[in-house]
Amino acid sequence: MSVSLKLKPNANARVLRGHPWVFANECEALLPAEYDGSVVECRDRTGRLLGTGIYNSKSQIVWRRLSRERVVLDEAYLRGALERAVARRQGAGDFKRLVWSESDDLPGLVVDRFGDTLVAQIQTLAMDRHGATIGDLLIELTGAQEVIFRNDSNLRKLEGLAPGVHTRTGRAWEPRWSNIDGLDYWLDLQGGQKTGFYLDQRWQHAAVAKYAAGKRVLDAFCNQGSFALHAAKAGAASVLGLDSAFDAVAQAKKNAGRNGLKADFQGVNVFDWFTAQRDAAPAWDLIILDPPPFAKSKSALEGALRGYKELNLRAMKALAPGGVLATYTCSHHMQDAQLREVLADAAADAKRRVHVLEFCHQPPDHPVLVTMPESEYLRGYILRVE
Amino acid sequence: MSVSLKLKPNANARVLRGHPWVFANECEALLPAEYDGSVVECRDRTGRLLGTGIYNSKSQIVWRRLSRERVVLDEAYLRGALERAVARRQGAGDFKRLVWSESDDLPGLVVDRFGDTLVAQIQTLAMDRHGATIGDLLIELTGAQEVIFRNDSNLRKLEGLAPGVHTRTGRAWEPRWSNIDGLDYWLDLQGGQKTGFYLDQRWQHAAVAKYAAGKRVLDAFCNQGSFALHAAKAGAASVLGLDSAFDAVAQAKKNAGRNGLKADFQGVNVFDWFTAQRDAAPAWDLIILDPPPFAKSKSALEGALRGYKELNLRAMKALAPGGVLATYTCSHHMQDAQLREVLADAAADAKRRVHVLEFCHQPPDHPVLVTMPESEYLRGYILRVE
Repeated sequence: MSVSLKLKPNANARVLRGHPWVFANECEALLPAEYDGSVVECRDRTGRLLGTGIYNSKSQIVWRRLSRERVVLDEAYLRGALERAVARRQGAGDFKRLVWSESDDLPGLVVDRFGDTLVAQIQTLAMDRHGATIGDLLIELTGAQEVIFRNDSNLRKLEGLAPGVHTRTGRAWEPRWSNIDGLDYWLDLQGGQKTGFYLDQRWQHAAVAKYAAGKRVLDAFCNQGSFALHAAKAGAASVLGLDSAFDAVAQAKKNAGRNGLKADFQGVNVFDWFTAQRDAAPAWDLIILDPPPFAKSKSALEGALRGYKELNLRAMKALAPGGVLATYTCSHHMQDAQLREVLADAAADAKRRVHVLEFCHQPPDHPVLVTMPESEYLRGYILRVE
Repeated sequence: MSVSLKLKPNANARVLRGHPWVFANECEALLPAEYDGSVVECRDRTGRLLGTGIYNSKSQIVWRRLSRERVVLDEAYLRGALERAVARRQGAGDFKRLVWSESDDLPGLVVDRFGDTLVAQIQTLAMDRHGATIGDLLIELTGAQEVIFRNDSNLRKLEGLAPGVHTRTGRAWEPRWSNIDGLDYWLDLQGGQKTGFYLDQRWQHAAVAKYAAGKRVLDAFCNQGSFALHAAKAGAASVLGLDSAFDAVAQAKKNAGRNGLKADFQGVNVFDWFTAQRDAAPAWDLIILDPPPFAKSKSALEGALRGYKELNLRAMKALAPGGVLATYTCSHHMQDAQLREVLADAAADAKRRVHVLEFCHQPPDHPVLVTMPESEYLRGYILRVE
């Protein structure tokens, strides 16, 4: 008989209602550490099977469902899940998220595709044990040449995993120019931030660029410059990108030069910059606010909401009448209702009439599971600020 | 000195935070009925001006803001607001919502454009008094030929207004064929449902049609057949539309014939139809659920959520693996968080893996005001049901 994790009688209804996670405090008893990284069943207090999933007593999330049925985590399972992940993104081009953790039945595995190179992040012990198989299958199923394992996320610590970065072939991946959506970017996939390029905002680059022609554009958290460069390419009258990270600013300048686009980039703290501009006349027609996650945890949310409101308020005040504000949040802790409230407060304080022009969401290669709110982390609005 | 409506000391912070409505129970005292239909100021307990707006003691919503500044409701105001409304929708074609109440600073006025004909709905006493001026200005600013005043909404009762339908010219508007997004529809703008055609789902007709080629398509609340006909045009293998209103079904059949499209339509209660199909094998690849508003009031919401969950559950069960569900709600009482919960519950009960393919919202000609949640009433999801 296989080992089962049993939920407390009063366990949260979440997992019973289809959510794929079980927390340590929801279990009648934890299983011995020898099961860490293994597949175990989960049952409710009546013994009813809720599914099979990967177990790790070291993690707050002790169990992550693989399937509602009985499954084992072997090559056949991995192949099936990877094939489905690839099929779901058929026709999405060569730059995309290819595997997205629970949304693709592979909890803790994230894979991005950059042309011939795949970047994999493994964040659960069970998946880590199958890292080599995953690498082989990815090459077989996608025809890519290389897999870079970027196992340097802080999330690994929560699973008791050591950090490390390596390539499947063992060869160092040389940074290079890559063309994404019509612009060249200098990609350093083995050494750069996150997985090297934020693929999740590609649709938004195009959405926002529609409003840029002839406009004065401010990209307030510009990173390597994607929004700014797409605005410049769309015919903006002027473009300024800000970022507190000097290497990002250097990168953005290099990208602008390579693409022959005129855009200014400054390494500054965005809050300080807005404060310094406080008394200036509204001088912008299009402002993009795509900050890093302010709320990395639930407890940090209140402060994050205050900061987020302040930032949006300052941006609204800095916009000329009829200007456009593209504002995003990439923390799943900030729910849509909270973001709305922040934007409404900012609009009221700014005494501006603010309409929604576009509602912005994760692209379909980062699919949201309807039974798992945490699978949605990116949302935003393109607003007209009259 | 002009007349002011004064808020109670403990008045809800809503209007202080930019919301354009004041309810009767939020006022220190109501103004005499002689001010009904007039413009009055609203002040907080300290005497601070919150704006000028239209007053009606007969309505639960006694005050609706026109502006944060001092304004009068005269031809100049109406002209300015209508010009801004027209400018906001520049380039949106000849079939669109042209004026959308509070979102266009014209509380209680809704205008849809159908080519040369405008359909106006007036739902507040103050706007009703200016009906003739509004009609004249609309003709002047849009170049349209006729305005049909569809003042037969139940909302007028809440303002103490009598119902009535008439045209600006006094001539009866003859029903006719009109081409909207590549399909001919028989429009009866003076006699048909609502304003004759649901312009708010036009973007969704195209979004959903992308998934229809070669598929078995069910349009469960088909009305005059827009989703069904767009699916048929996109190459669906088969199309069935259901609607409990026999005149809608007759209309849908007539539209299908006119466009030379093959689609079946049945006049049935959709819940009963799903119940009768309960034990059938999943026989659909694409199901559209675009029901009329179940929750017409806050108090009706609980029952509506139950009904909505049941409906989505049955649709998920009726979909073949990998099928697509396009599901919408058009009641502002059903918030996004509630809709999500309904869909998560349905997915869990159906034991299906359900991903979001597309997030669906009101089109920009029905602009949402960030300070007014009630200005958003239409939302939905296109889901993949594995």
